[in-house]
Amino acid sequence: MVEIERKYLVNGLGYRKEARAHIRIVQAFLSTDPDRTIRVRCTGPHGFLTIKGRTCDKGTTRREWEYEIPLKDAEEMLALCVTPPIEKIRYQVEFGLHTFEVDEFTGLNQGLTLAEVELESADEVIEKPSWLGQEVTGDIRYYNSQLSLKPYTTWND
Amino acid sequence: MVEIERKYLVNGLGYRKEARAHIRIVQAFLSTDPDRTIRVRCTGPHGFLTIKGRTCDKGTTRREWEYEIPLKDAEEMLALCVTPPIEKIRYQVEFGLHTFEVDEFTGLNQGLTLAEVELESADEVIEKPSWLGQEVTGDIRYYNSQLSLKPYTTWND
Repeated sequence: MVEIERKYLVNGLGYRKEARAHIRIVQAFLSTDPDRTIRVRCTGPHGFLTIKGRTCDKGTTRREWEYEIPLKDAEEMLALCVTPPIEKIRYQVEFGLHTFEVDEFTGLNQGLTLAEVELESADEVIEKPSWLGQEVTGDIRYYNSQLSLKPYTTWND
Repeated sequence: MVEIERKYLVNGLGYRKEARAHIRIVQAFLSTDPDRTIRVRCTGPHGFLTIKGRTCDKGTTRREWEYEIPLKDAEEMLALCVTPPIEKIRYQVEFGLHTFEVDEFTGLNQGLTLAEVELESADEVIEKPSWLGQEVTGDIRYYNSQLSLKPYTTWND
């Protein structure tokens, strides 16, 4: 499938009280090549393997294939990954017609919070909650694969 | 799971008349990193995604996870791969207590035929058919991932 999404920085913690659920995610990458990233993810009792292709259309559109795999497999594969695991708490927030996934990173990416929203089409209009900050769609530094390699707390700017 | 296997060169074509089946395989790699190769394979009507870990125990033992995926996904992913696809005809040959998978490579690996046998334990005794040649277990040049990068017809030795 083709994934169309936009990514934003987040201001404050206002999203927390609007969230209908949150879950802990641990993930790492078997490959961080931006043209074919391969992600292993443990989300509660579920394991997933996700392949993401090249980004096109100004970073909005990306090929993606995701398969659920046994949690045990995913846990074992984390140890095989080329990057250290990233941990984050993901909040699901409904706003207007969309669901925002707000990721609070921990560990070496502590202090970074990102919101993502998935769209039906690249030109879809989004109603923006007040806590939504600057758009960073297509900025490779905010890819989770790159946050593994160069965590937020090591950025100098 | 842990895969224990031995790999051999093959002499002549004697295996063909002993084979109970053969099938065409097209495959390529999303990652050729020997510590975490990721293979996409189309075998007849089936697609597979396979992750192989580090080799240990003198090249005999390797972690492996394989998932069947829709053929359409696998075909699309071939275009995303970091290596050109490898094509081969695989013959299944029963001999003694074991099944040998004999791969006749085509294209840039034309002229190379390899046999693999999967074992229950690393010290298991194998009855060897007459066409089985030199063992090349653990020789990284004969990994399919490496045959994509440096095909057999380009070898100088």
